[in-house]
Amino acid sequence: MNGERMIIRQVHVTPVAFRDPPLLNAAGVHEPWALRTIVEVVTDEGLSGLGETYGDLHHLAKVRDCANAVVGLDVHALNEMYARIAATVGGTVTDLHGLTGAATKEKSIDRVFSPFEVACLDIRGKAAGVPVSDLLGGKVRDAVPYSAYLFYKWAGHPGEEPDRFGAALDEAGIVQQAKLLIDEYGFASIKLKGGVYPPDQEISAIRALHDAFPGVPLRLDPNAAWSVATSIRVGRELEGTLQYLEDPTPGIDGMGEVAAAVPMPLATNMCVVTPEHFPPAMAARSIGVLLLDHHYWGGLVRSSQVAAMCDAFGLSMSMHSNSHLGISLAAMTHLAAATPNLTFACDTHTPWQDGQDVVKPGALRFENGAVPVPTAPGLGVELDRDALSTMNEQYKKCGITARDDTSYMQRFTPSFTATRPRW
Amino acid sequence: MNGERMIIRQVHVTPVAFRDPPLLNAAGVHEPWALRTIVEVVTDEGLSGLGETYGDLHHLAKVRDCANAVVGLDVHALNEMYARIAATVGGTVTDLHGLTGAATKEKSIDRVFSPFEVACLDIRGKAAGVPVSDLLGGKVRDAVPYSAYLFYKWAGHPGEEPDRFGAALDEAGIVQQAKLLIDEYGFASIKLKGGVYPPDQEISAIRALHDAFPGVPLRLDPNAAWSVATSIRVGRELEGTLQYLEDPTPGIDGMGEVAAAVPMPLATNMCVVTPEHFPPAMAARSIGVLLLDHHYWGGLVRSSQVAAMCDAFGLSMSMHSNSHLGISLAAMTHLAAATPNLTFACDTHTPWQDGQDVVKPGALRFENGAVPVPTAPGLGVELDRDALSTMNEQYKKCGITARDDTSYMQRFTPSFTATRPRW
Repeated sequence: MNGERMIIRQVHVTPVAFRDPPLLNAAGVHEPWALRTIVEVVTDEGLSGLGETYGDLHHLAKVRDCANAVVGLDVHALNEMYARIAATVGGTVTDLHGLTGAATKEKSIDRVFSPFEVACLDIRGKAAGVPVSDLLGGKVRDAVPYSAYLFYKWAGHPGEEPDRFGAALDEAGIVQQAKLLIDEYGFASIKLKGGVYPPDQEISAIRALHDAFPGVPLRLDPNAAWSVATSIRVGRELEGTLQYLEDPTPGIDGMGEVAAAVPMPLATNMCVVTPEHFPPAMAARSIGVLLLDHHYWGGLVRSSQVAAMCDAFGLSMSMHSNSHLGISLAAMTHLAAATPNLTFACDTHTPWQDGQDVVKPGALRFENGAVPVPTAPGLGVELDRDALSTMNEQYKKCGITARDDTSYMQRFTPSFTATRPRW
Repeated sequence: MNGERMIIRQVHVTPVAFRDPPLLNAAGVHEPWALRTIVEVVTDEGLSGLGETYGDLHHLAKVRDCANAVVGLDVHALNEMYARIAATVGGTVTDLHGLTGAATKEKSIDRVFSPFEVACLDIRGKAAGVPVSDLLGGKVRDAVPYSAYLFYKWAGHPGEEPDRFGAALDEAGIVQQAKLLIDEYGFASIKLKGGVYPPDQEISAIRALHDAFPGVPLRLDPNAAWSVATSIRVGRELEGTLQYLEDPTPGIDGMGEVAAAVPMPLATNMCVVTPEHFPPAMAARSIGVLLLDHHYWGGLVRSSQVAAMCDAFGLSMSMHSNSHLGISLAAMTHLAAATPNLTFACDTHTPWQDGQDVVKPGALRFENGAVPVPTAPGLGVELDRDALSTMNEQYKKCGITARDDTSYMQRFTPSFTATRPRW
């Protein structure tokens, strides 16, 4: 018998920064550095677990406050942990980039709670000698398929050498980027981040992908850059090409109007981002696909609960991604593996991190576009302390404290605004 | 580190029978013996876990089939176990007594899956050295309040001596029964099983309880014995006396009509009994309170998921009970303790079993109407093999193979029918 209580004695919270290419989206363009926060929970038996979350300063401050609040709790006491974090977080966390929907109190608590919960599951898996997927009901697939996540992008950050991905400013560039990612990772489905160019240009890009990769499922995500009318027009023009259309327009009601008028299901990671959004979204029939994201749905167990809710309401599921590192990729993979109704290939930004990571190499790899579910106890990844230290130094030096795609874009295009819907 | 895989090597399935008083309800009257099935799962390391479920023969046969189907699985592989059980169960399990709503395929699978899941959690808790409540997020209360569950009843089974509870055939008998149960158990809320007498008689009983126990929350459950019009009339007449009114009328739509017209919330364990009932019930605003029951909601983890769905949709929660033994009481207590939004006192039939049990005494007790959450690893209860053997002998000899309150009532009142709504 393994022994009883596992009490949290210490929590290490480390902000990190890593290089990020100039990926374009409706809010602007990715800055040269992406931020994350690494959470390491240590128990009095010396077991440790890892979590990963957003790196924005406001969020980091909340995570640091909560790191103190959870010391002394058992790693199983997740209800009590949630209550303490709710009490500590209080108000809302500002979501500057605005790409994951409105900020709400509940979502702020869930976002802060998530890395602590993941770290506790990592510890519990290690203690029990089982992978985290086993703590979520057991894997139903041995590898989790991810999609090729395409972005319009500049050749490189202004004033720097072009990066190895090159420019993608039209459909030819997008098709070439897809070929590169598919060659390297073996992806079997494709998502294009849209909302960057006028809709007809993005329609052309989807058609070019459809021609270049016949039979490969395609998705388009303009991050709510379109009006209801534009969304309906684009949805109808893209009939027969899209697996689903993601967040064409803002809001539960607008999405409901579009959903009723277009031939493909709508997906969201913007209009349904916390449990309180379910009732109005189900009433408005806004979506057919929910993009799960344990980073803001309150960790892995709560994400499983959301998956059960999707099952009850007949929603399909995929998974949303922000720029992330290997701790998150491991957590996403365990969750997806143990969620029977998460059947679409998940999103990941992993290719854009191009090998940068805070976990030691070897535990995570792509085979035919899918990540084999780690079988080692816990998340199955190990912190690379040298890499963590380097990335923390990068954080201190990079000068970025919160993601702000809009201001960065305005440095080069002063007239740019992130107004949505734009078209 | 505790060791890796825990593979199911054997499952023992034992039907049991125990004495049950002649409790009246809309379907008839309880027979002299109540049936349950005890499931004991044994792993190759020799750890064992307990589950408890219905004892009806059709259900027992499905449980036996599934006992073979789960051998060889790891105790964490609950998704795979569910899939195997779904494949084995196939069609629907007949619910002869009809008191927990319509039978559906999903519910049949969930009902068969439940005891296996509970037993696996018992094993996992024992292996990790933590109570089952810790596997469900950790307890948020140290003791779980239960309600005094009153029944109209005969003095004893026909042809037998009166039992110690005596007759309760009018409001005076009901008030006296409430006093007895509250004296012995300390309950702080009261539920009356109705649907037995014409509604005005049951209204009088509630008023008598209201007068005899001022301030004590009251509930009335006629098991869908009333029409919509009768339900609305009764609901309005009972304004100010009921915490909630449980299943006054059949069906999601009928409940929605009643809910819109009465002053108290409606509760159900009949019209929303499987996840597929959520969408129509939420659309019809049928209920304000869901009575959780892990025996048909697919075990403890799935019940937690249902609780999360209730939270999202603004439903309050209590817990439903059928005649049960200590394994179920332990499981119910762990689940309720770890479910923050399960705030109403739970139902239990425990007093009516009057000390009969398959678990060794001492682990479960009532203090001020509440059961302290067991703190020993797993469920915290231990099988009493002598009692199990005795109860299994009783099962073989009692001549009852499926609960049938209606036929038993018709032996004494041949004109009785269980037609609902009756009034």
